[in-house]
Amino acid sequence: MRAVDLIRKKRDSGEHSREEINFLISGYTRGEIPDYQMSAWLMATWIRGLNDAERASLTEAMLHSGEVVDHANLPGKKVDKHSTGGVGDKTSLILAPIVAAGGVIVPMISGRGLGHTGGTLDKLESIPGFNTELSLLEFRRVLKECGMCLIGQTPEIVPADKKIYALRDATSTIENIGLICASIMSKKLAEGIDALVLDVKTGSGAFMRKEEDAVHLAEVMVDTAKRMEKKAVALITDMDQPLGKFAGHSDEVIESIEVLKGRGAKDLHELSLELSAWMFFLGERTASVDEGRRLAETMISSGQALEKFRQCIRLQGGDERVIDDYNLLPQAVHKVDVISTAAGYLAATNCTEFGIALAMLGGGRETKEDRIDHGVGLQFHKRIGDRVEHGEPLVTIYYNVAMKLDEAKSRISSAFVFSESKVPEKKLIRRLVGV
Amino acid sequence: MRAVDLIRKKRDSGEHSREEINFLISGYTRGEIPDYQMSAWLMATWIRGLNDAERASLTEAMLHSGEVVDHANLPGKKVDKHSTGGVGDKTSLILAPIVAAGGVIVPMISGRGLGHTGGTLDKLESIPGFNTELSLLEFRRVLKECGMCLIGQTPEIVPADKKIYALRDATSTIENIGLICASIMSKKLAEGIDALVLDVKTGSGAFMRKEEDAVHLAEVMVDTAKRMEKKAVALITDMDQPLGKFAGHSDEVIESIEVLKGRGAKDLHELSLELSAWMFFLGERTASVDEGRRLAETMISSGQALEKFRQCIRLQGGDERVIDDYNLLPQAVHKVDVISTAAGYLAATNCTEFGIALAMLGGGRETKEDRIDHGVGLQFHKRIGDRVEHGEPLVTIYYNVAMKLDEAKSRISSAFVFSESKVPEKKLIRRLVGV
Repeated sequence: MRAVDLIRKKRDSGEHSREEINFLISGYTRGEIPDYQMSAWLMATWIRGLNDAERASLTEAMLHSGEVVDHANLPGKKVDKHSTGGVGDKTSLILAPIVAAGGVIVPMISGRGLGHTGGTLDKLESIPGFNTELSLLEFRRVLKECGMCLIGQTPEIVPADKKIYALRDATSTIENIGLICASIMSKKLAEGIDALVLDVKTGSGAFMRKEEDAVHLAEVMVDTAKRMEKKAVALITDMDQPLGKFAGHSDEVIESIEVLKGRGAKDLHELSLELSAWMFFLGERTASVDEGRRLAETMISSGQALEKFRQCIRLQGGDERVIDDYNLLPQAVHKVDVISTAAGYLAATNCTEFGIALAMLGGGRETKEDRIDHGVGLQFHKRIGDRVEHGEPLVTIYYNVAMKLDEAKSRISSAFVFSESKVPEKKLIRRLVGV
Repeated sequence: MRAVDLIRKKRDSGEHSREEINFLISGYTRGEIPDYQMSAWLMATWIRGLNDAERASLTEAMLHSGEVVDHANLPGKKVDKHSTGGVGDKTSLILAPIVAAGGVIVPMISGRGLGHTGGTLDKLESIPGFNTELSLLEFRRVLKECGMCLIGQTPEIVPADKKIYALRDATSTIENIGLICASIMSKKLAEGIDALVLDVKTGSGAFMRKEEDAVHLAEVMVDTAKRMEKKAVALITDMDQPLGKFAGHSDEVIESIEVLKGRGAKDLHELSLELSAWMFFLGERTASVDEGRRLAETMISSGQALEKFRQCIRLQGGDERVIDDYNLLPQAVHKVDVISTAAGYLAATNCTEFGIALAMLGGGRETKEDRIDHGVGLQFHKRIGDRVEHGEPLVTIYYNVAMKLDEAKSRISSAFVFSESKVPEKKLIRRLVGV
């Protein structure tokens, strides 16, 4: 088998066998196939596409480029959730404690924020001492002790992805459903899970702005999981406005703890419960999703979820006192309101702009090397459908450095769209895929 | 400007500006754009294509990646011919002396054979001492002295092409009209010519088997030349059977000298004259192609073309006595006939097979590193339309090493197709493009 022939095959819209895809991925990971051949294949694949079987083969080949975590020593089902990302999406911090408290193991390997989206690891790192860079050995130890663990990518997990992703980034071959799916699914399956709940965002703050694109990605990911003999379901959820009332790092940790305390924003509470319910159901902990929802509610009302989060923070080296004293988290020293210059009903937001504004103020990354200011945050006062009067605050900005403040304010201000007539509220959960 | 954005543009079927293509080619040649980005762009370009303006821009950018030969010191027009290659195609060795003898300068930079096709440089090197690797300075000196010079690619000429061609070879991005055209035309225009006659082969021994593909390539090359303000015309010529009676190296040199002596195969004589006539006409040496044809005949009948070739051989370090004594050329020691096992009219040949058989016997290259046995050759006894009887020789093989002789014989034998009814002769010159 030769790489040049496989490139030709995909160039000519041919279908690769499992062996062919494995040859390419394992050869590239080992450094036997050079970057320039892989990038030609990636471009041919970007344009010609991958069918269902090829996508599963690619996922499998990437998965086996590294270690698949073995949980043989841990009884019970392992279930994770993956979100395609958005603004204010902090459900991982809420559902992991709920689901672990309810008896399903959550081995969560997460990413960092880039561009307009936040990352679970970055949020957790606003907790003093919290270590997201555990070895796989420590990961398994924490999981065994408390049933949940939240870490970042380790070098042993899907090394092919890191190498291929860097190449895709440099060759404009990122935005392809098959390649995106294989990248996500290989990393999730490497966690050693039995089932996966997908939260595929759609709307102005999502990578998939159109609902039909989100549904397509969801279908493809669910299909891939099933071909790999894992249970999977996807929720298509709204990202036409931020999830919850806060975007930032300390602020999102606080908002998550609030939900675990039975308070917090309604939409965030609802989505966290719904995702937890599906994790219970797919993890065979409950006989139905309804039962899962009730179990999730109980985990909150009994305080068990909050205690699970406290235990996890402690085991991962963090200062667990943040649960009771939010002042232990980094806080921005200045604040300013973005005031509405219009009156009417809030009809839409260009939600991506909030994420970009946050990043500009230091609360996000423009390049992978940027450091994050965990204290910076945005508080959202209005939701789509709300009545807004002239001079009312739309957003409060919490910041430390004023350098790009004016640009951030103007981006935020112009991201709101008003209507004179009443606008219905947004439906949070748009659709289910794979049920 | 960033390469990653230009890759994306071509991926999305966008049209590049002249500046964008120049950025890519000059950046790649200087090593500022890495192989993996260029190969992704090449694949996107292979699939999406280049329009007329982009193709001209690519040709121009490649041309200016190196030196364009300056003939300011040489009065008179400079005209060259380029053939897309085939089996037994030795017209360069004939027309260059004819045209130079007639007063038009022929600055010819040629290639080597690869796969089933022969190369002009390889053929010339069967002449003891003949040096095809002259510097550009020596090239200009020989041109000044005798009006023709036949050399290989020098490092100063279109360095982008060597680098890009190697990358295309490794990434299955060779067979694309726009990329092929830019590769050919940039090298030809770097010779410092005023006009170019193209011999685009079509048929079973050509790269463009179908006539419509050959015409398309011809149109594209003529258009590119005209956009670069050079005169150009293309002849679409038959490659459904070998040109002339011989394929090989010494054998083709001998056959060329025979034509220059007023003898030699009819088809080879006819095509050489026709190409010379067009070179005279485009070089403004004659007022018509007809007049050019008569001038070419005169150059042969007067012996001036033969003397021009003798002078060129001497100036390039070769043993000019080969003109009168063919025994000074390397000759194979064994010969064997391929006999017809059928009777009928020769209807077609799978002409590529002859080139492959020749290469197998050492008279061609399978990889760029292979050495050539200049004495090996094939003599063709029958042409399409000829009556053939059982047991008649079809081809005589001249060889030194018998290792792959059986396979070569069998390839040659099965390359002949017979018909019971009479078959018309093949038309040698199928069409003119760009007139």
